[in-house]
Amino acid sequence: MPAIDLNGDLGESYGLWRLGEDAELLPALSSVNLACGFHASDPTTMRAAVVAADGHRLAIGAHPSFPDLRGFGRTPMALPPPVVRDDVLYQLGALHAICRAEGATLRHVKPHGALYHAVAGDADVAAAVAEAVAAFDPGLPLVVPAHAATLGVLEDAGLLLVFEAFLDRGYQPDGRLLPRGRPGAVLEDAGEIVERALSLAVDGVVRAVDGETLELRPDTLCLHGDGLRSARVARAVRDALERAGVQVRPAAGALP
Amino acid sequence: MPAIDLNGDLGESYGLWRLGEDAELLPALSSVNLACGFHASDPTTMRAAVVAADGHRLAIGAHPSFPDLRGFGRTPMALPPPVVRDDVLYQLGALHAICRAEGATLRHVKPHGALYHAVAGDADVAAAVAEAVAAFDPGLPLVVPAHAATLGVLEDAGLLLVFEAFLDRGYQPDGRLLPRGRPGAVLEDAGEIVERALSLAVDGVVRAVDGETLELRPDTLCLHGDGLRSARVARAVRDALERAGVQVRPAAGALP
Amino acid sequence: MPAIDLNGDLGESYGLWRLGEDAELLPALSSVNLACGFHASDPTTMRAAVVAADGHRLAIGAHPSFPDLRGFGRTPMALPPPVVRDDVLYQLGALHAICRAEGATLRHVKPHGALYHAVAGDADVAAAVAEAVAAFDPGLPLVVPAHAATLGVLEDAGLLLVFEAFLDRGYQPDGRLLPRGRPGAVLEDAGEIVERALSLAVDGVVRAVDGETLELRPDTLCLHGDGLRSARVARAVRDALERAGVQVRPAAGALP
Amino acid sequence: MPAIDLNGDLGESYGLWRLGEDAELLPALSSVNLACGFHASDPTTMRAAVVAADGHRLAIGAHPSFPDLRGFGRTPMALPPPVVRDDVLYQLGALHAICRAEGATLRHVKPHGALYHAVAGDADVAAAVAEAVAAFDPGLPLVVPAHAATLGVLEDAGLLLVFEAFLDRGYQPDGRLLPRGRPGAVLEDAGEIVERALSLAVDGVVRAVDGETLELRPDTLCLHGDGLRSARVARAVRDALERAGVQVRPAAGALP
Repeated sequence: MPAIDLNGDLGESYGLWRLGEDAELLPALSSVNLACGFHASDPTTMRAAVVAADGHRLAIGAHPSFPDLRGFGRTPMALPPPVVRDDVLYQLGALHAICRAEGATLRHVKPHGALYHAVAGDADVAAAVAEAVAAFDPGLPLVVPAHAATLGVLEDAGLLLVFEAFLDRGYQPDGRLLPRGRPGAVLEDAGEIVERALSLAVDGVVRAVDGETLELRPDTLCLHGDGLRSARVARAVRDALERAGVQVRPAAGALP
Repeated sequence: MPAIDLNGDLGESYGLWRLGEDAELLPALSSVNLACGFHASDPTTMRAAVVAADGHRLAIGAHPSFPDLRGFGRTPMALPPPVVRDDVLYQLGALHAICRAEGATLRHVKPHGALYHAVAGDADVAAAVAEAVAAFDPGLPLVVPAHAATLGVLEDAGLLLVFEAFLDRGYQPDGRLLPRGRPGAVLEDAGEIVERALSLAVDGVVRAVDGETLELRPDTLCLHGDGLRSARVARAVRDALERAGVQVRPAAGALP
Repeated sequence: MPAIDLNGDLGESYGLWRLGEDAELLPALSSVNLACGFHASDPTTMRAAVVAADGHRLAIGAHPSFPDLRGFGRTPMALPPPVVRDDVLYQLGALHAICRAEGATLRHVKPHGALYHAVAGDADVAAAVAEAVAAFDPGLPLVVPAHAATLGVLEDAGLLLVFEAFLDRGYQPDGRLLPRGRPGAVLEDAGEIVERALSLAVDGVVRAVDGETLELRPDTLCLHGDGLRSARVARAVRDALERAGVQVRPAAGALP
Repeated sequence: MPAIDLNGDLGESYGLWRLGEDAELLPALSSVNLACGFHASDPTTMRAAVVAADGHRLAIGAHPSFPDLRGFGRTPMALPPPVVRDDVLYQLGALHAICRAEGATLRHVKPHGALYHAVAGDADVAAAVAEAVAAFDPGLPLVVPAHAATLGVLEDAGLLLVFEAFLDRGYQPDGRLLPRGRPGAVLEDAGEIVERALSLAVDGVVRAVDGETLELRPDTLCLHGDGLRSARVARAVRDALERAGVQVRPAAGALP
């Protein structure tokens, strides 16, 4: 029986400011990535997110970021790798403490925003993040794009890796995402997104922008949570997967 | 054989900015309180402080604060108690992760600055901090002033308490510190400070500003680390204690 | 012909996070208070708010705050008065520069949140804020509650003062607001709010919680902008005032 | 009579943390660049720096930065150009207000750290900063490296430009600085630095690393203020210049 993880970014409010539709998105997911205060969230928001995710029995992961609240962690920053390593460690520990207070467990780490892209494309940043995760808990899986150019570095670090694919982004033939702004970079059609989820979950493949079949074999699919639309699409994806006999469950649960 | 702990605040640099004379102060101490990024320090500074303290085999404690870098955690802030609780938990976890990466262990928690005073004087804040520490690790002792007005709340929380006395501050007859700015509020004479350390470590008492003997029975004595002067005084205190047959060792080690 | 100012807090988004319904509220107002980055907003958000307010020909004022993004400027903070003074000056200058770039002019200053309450109740903070405003531009009016306990200090500073009354808050007989949480502290009935606006604009009075008539003689009425409800109420207030022959125009315009 | 400006970065403390030896460096300078809170400083530190610089009758300039306190503005950040523009405007205004309160005047703008390099090397960032300065005050000169690759963009913006050369950095034949870490990248010999100051001030030239003479024709020379050594070197430079009949005065004063 094929299985896949559906992950979403949650707990991205900050202070008085709300973001996302966490309550609506939660039922569609099997795992969540929780902001740790560097691109969004604060300790009280983190606690509420842990409680909500744990209440839905979702796998809770840390979503560490560059320190960039104003830019929501999306600003590329050329930080020294040891600083990145220590920043990630700090965030893992902070979320871990809040999980511990609520009787929940940290199950994975998924870098956020510009840090996610740096982990996928910059060997020094990839090594720094891997070092942080391994130092905190070598059994904690790291979520990276299925097409990460830094795969060698990440595998050398000895971490468990969870490969991620995107349902609403166009892929280049080499497995990299089409940059935003280019035609086909962002998919908006719900039917197309659902179809892609099935193809990725059952066969591990996606059709690249050149029409060729690209093998990604993802462990987890990312469901964005930014708009009202997303919760509806997320539920449609989950329903379609379950109807097709695909088990939706945390990726980490399937790891050795 | 009488015993006492000598604690100091370390790791209070931030980014490029240096503060304190950590290297000079370390040999005089038996335990250190490390800033967690809310009033000073950053993840990389925290790591360096953990390495330095662990290298001297000192007991490492967390030094959580109100979120107030600009004011060095000294600004009284009326935060809601649940926010204080979550802020403390966040900081404990962050430092714990860095300790774990370096093979070190968190041994105690000492609130910093305005938070320290709030824990001693405000029952709601005391309960919030105690809840955070207990949720993170109920065996982790909390350092509070020997004269804390909130002693009842803190004891109800079931935490191990470490009582602290100050060597360079004037005491009122009821055990509270004389406010800064009042005559006798700050002691500057090294001989007087050393004499007071002996009196507190051996007999558990201090002479209050009214001349009467005040019983404090502290577990730990605070050695400030702000000026060049302090490292010299700290060493004089330690030397005098050891010559008098007082064992200098972490307070937490003596707890049940 | 009676006249009154209707003011609202705008530009309270931050980075990616949105707050308020600026576009809906603007047509009901004659003046706006724009966050300056200490409790909300950022330079780019400030520019957008200046453009929007100027496009509606509203009087633009600065809305300086304690440095407290996470707490939205609502956390009481015991900052030294010279620090408060310099913080306010910094914020005035920052908004002034953005106004200048857009050809707009700063017309008033209204402290935000916990700073607003401190200006009304703490003589040292009141003097510090007044000093900042006078140093920046002695002709810039300062908005304070009609019942400010610090009126003497504020008048001594020689500033122009704009007196504010609240439409949705209960008043005590001495002119102070009823603390939130007490019965009658917050008015929710639109009809009652509109009636109160008329009474304040035409006769300068409000009915206190004890039923007695309280003379406030406000120059400006505050219309909160937090919820969808507020824009509707704000328009109802403005419509009712105009139907009653009250001119709605900036308070600063009426000052000598 | 030849003339040159000697500029230094000042006011780079933050909260309790001290940096630089402002008092020692001031007498050697004719102009200062004051941090505006984004990479260092805070409103109260800014005020003290303005008072100190004004007391020495130095030309005061703004030293805006990327928002990066922890990294001291040295972290390259890929911010959207409109955000850079608004950030610079915000900082100019903030410092301007504090100058106004102290009766001082803003005379120039010199971007700091990673922003300085981005202005010199990235046309979009250069245009954004130029737009901010022009919008605030088109008569305010912008300090850029004599070798800026973005000279065309900067000239198109119609700003007054002040060209800067460095006394302690190795130059490549094309006028760019030798990257730190390469042999000859940083000069440490005081005699060599003084000699270079004379050559740049009198003849406008410097010897590049390949031994060839490079024409820079700077308006201002940068004297770093990070270590105790720098104040001594700065005074030696100034003394040598004055003995050689070179007038040391603000660059802005010489502009049309």
